[in-house]
Amino acid sequence: MTHYRLALLGFGNVGQALARLLLEKQDELRSRYDITFTVTGIATGRHGAALNPSGIDLGRALELVRSDHSLSSLSDSVVNDMLDFIAASRADVLFETIPVNYITGQPALDYLRAALKSGMHAITANKGPLVHAYRELTELARIKERKFYFESAVMDGAPIFSLFRQTLPVAKLRAFCGVLNSTTNLILTRMETGEDFSRAVAYAQSIGIAETDPSGDIDGWDAAVKVAALVTVLMGIPLKPIEVDRQGIRSITSAEIESARCEGKRWKLICSARREMEGVFARVAPEMVGSDSLFYGVNGTSSIVQFETDVLSSFSIIETDPGPRTTAYGLLADFVNAVTQ
Amino acid sequence: MTHYRLALLGFGNVGQALARLLLEKQDELRSRYDITFTVTGIATGRHGAALNPSGIDLGRALELVRSDHSLSSLSDSVVNDMLDFIAASRADVLFETIPVNYITGQPALDYLRAALKSGMHAITANKGPLVHAYRELTELARIKERKFYFESAVMDGAPIFSLFRQTLPVAKLRAFCGVLNSTTNLILTRMETGEDFSRAVAYAQSIGIAETDPSGDIDGWDAAVKVAALVTVLMGIPLKPIEVDRQGIRSITSAEIESARCEGKRWKLICSARREMEGVFARVAPEMVGSDSLFYGVNGTSSIVQFETDVLSSFSIIETDPGPRTTAYGLLADFVNAVTQ
Repeated sequence: MTHYRLALLGFGNVGQALARLLLEKQDELRSRYDITFTVTGIATGRHGAALNPSGIDLGRALELVRSDHSLSSLSDSVVNDMLDFIAASRADVLFETIPVNYITGQPALDYLRAALKSGMHAITANKGPLVHAYRELTELARIKERKFYFESAVMDGAPIFSLFRQTLPVAKLRAFCGVLNSTTNLILTRMETGEDFSRAVAYAQSIGIAETDPSGDIDGWDAAVKVAALVTVLMGIPLKPIEVDRQGIRSITSAEIESARCEGKRWKLICSARREMEGVFARVAPEMVGSDSLFYGVNGTSSIVQFETDVLSSFSIIETDPGPRTTAYGLLADFVNAVTQ
Repeated sequence: MTHYRLALLGFGNVGQALARLLLEKQDELRSRYDITFTVTGIATGRHGAALNPSGIDLGRALELVRSDHSLSSLSDSVVNDMLDFIAASRADVLFETIPVNYITGQPALDYLRAALKSGMHAITANKGPLVHAYRELTELARIKERKFYFESAVMDGAPIFSLFRQTLPVAKLRAFCGVLNSTTNLILTRMETGEDFSRAVAYAQSIGIAETDPSGDIDGWDAAVKVAALVTVLMGIPLKPIEVDRQGIRSITSAEIESARCEGKRWKLICSARREMEGVFARVAPEMVGSDSLFYGVNGTSSIVQFETDVLSSFSIIETDPGPRTTAYGLLADFVNAVTQ
């Protein structure tokens, strides 16, 4: 039986879903994986932070946040800033789910680096640190004999990175294409029912899928970051989002959507990358697909990625209707995979 | 560096593809996984067998079989029968790809059992032994501290069993559905272009997809065996093919196919299983699917399986246009996963 101290940095929808999943699966973690745990720290954006080396009551923490109270009543010490929090948590594993800046990967990048330097496993749902510091953080983890894992950074908790890392030996990824941005896919799906662009955006915002400023999704930045992450990790070719040939969905009109529909086709924001003689060509752009395409049936917030390797001609992963629990599961799976493999 | 002696029992399309893949990937196996190997035995159905403890030249073996010659010229001893062959190979890993009887799992089952008893890892592409002796062979492997792996038994080399085994901790499979039989999917796809049933069957036979007696596919037996294998392994509920509620595609007429086409729909032979209060309900039956179904775009010899777990709402794996190399890759992946994990 191995006991782990866990710290949760970020306690929004995903952080809370992770807390619930940890509670739900604690017996199975013990019986099947010999894993027991104590949560020694939770840091939130709006409800303070709690530190307690003898363990924070997760159920109580969820209740406090749900009723809009601070977590400080669960803390046995004062938290000054996030780097202090990480150090004071004395955790074995840091789960990081804070909002992040795609342009710099900060501040999540600093926190993950600090966690690894302190000898913690660093697990994130953030694409930012991945595209900005994958090599550095992976190398740091190797030196410290810990893991830097990030399954939930692309396609929520669906196994993508772990699939290549743990089940596909000697496979070389030649190319991939997919629909990787939920917001634009939902907007396009809504527009097919006759909604105009701005109403579809408003709907996506109303259900918490699109940001207040939706341009990161609509202009293809989020998709480009995901393409860069997949190319960097799975192809081993460092690629920045800015290097992805990028076009968003802003220019697609209701008339174009309707005209595609009449032809039995749909517009999708397609992400793709292909190895070339030197490096890689990576692209995000809207394309029309017909009903024989695997992408045609991937609608709303669902996503798909199709991989072309040198050993399996082509195989695809589809994730249907993900939610915070899906993302939280990716974090939990990373934790178990990190400590058991 | 760890050196492994390998024995290939079966040297048809898949066995030969495995030999080519071993040659192609030997440098990478050495550099990335510290694995070196010698093939000490090859047994074929029609070209004799070869045993050589100092290693058989795989290129030469491929050449001999291609030119319809016996492998006996590569052998330093006489092979009496397959159980003798397994023992005399003194291998660390047995790859078994012989034709098999779905009803009994024999004779492959006896060979896999013998290999495990001799302390070999046993790797098979056969569904038969899996549905008839999964628990026995897995338990035997555990006792011997070896592995019984079978990735290629369902959906060729696409990662299904390894996905659940190695990347999805604490996930509980509630249900799955899919298109898992290539032959019937190809026949239905051909019938959509106007071919009648018997011509579509003849085409599938001409390209080596359907057997001389195609009833195992057409009547849904192959699909039922795959459903039983997935239920047995992934749900942990032993299920025999005969317990699967089964209906094949024999009764589907060209008129029905055409009528579905006019409605924008397609017939698919759908495999499904769902946990129930006690046990599981498993079924193989033709169903019509519309263009919004993920199954609509899975045509010809491609296949799909959609999993519903308690942690990832729904995710699917699609394999497009598999061939012997795909199946061979599943065997190679099983080998690497068996010796590195």
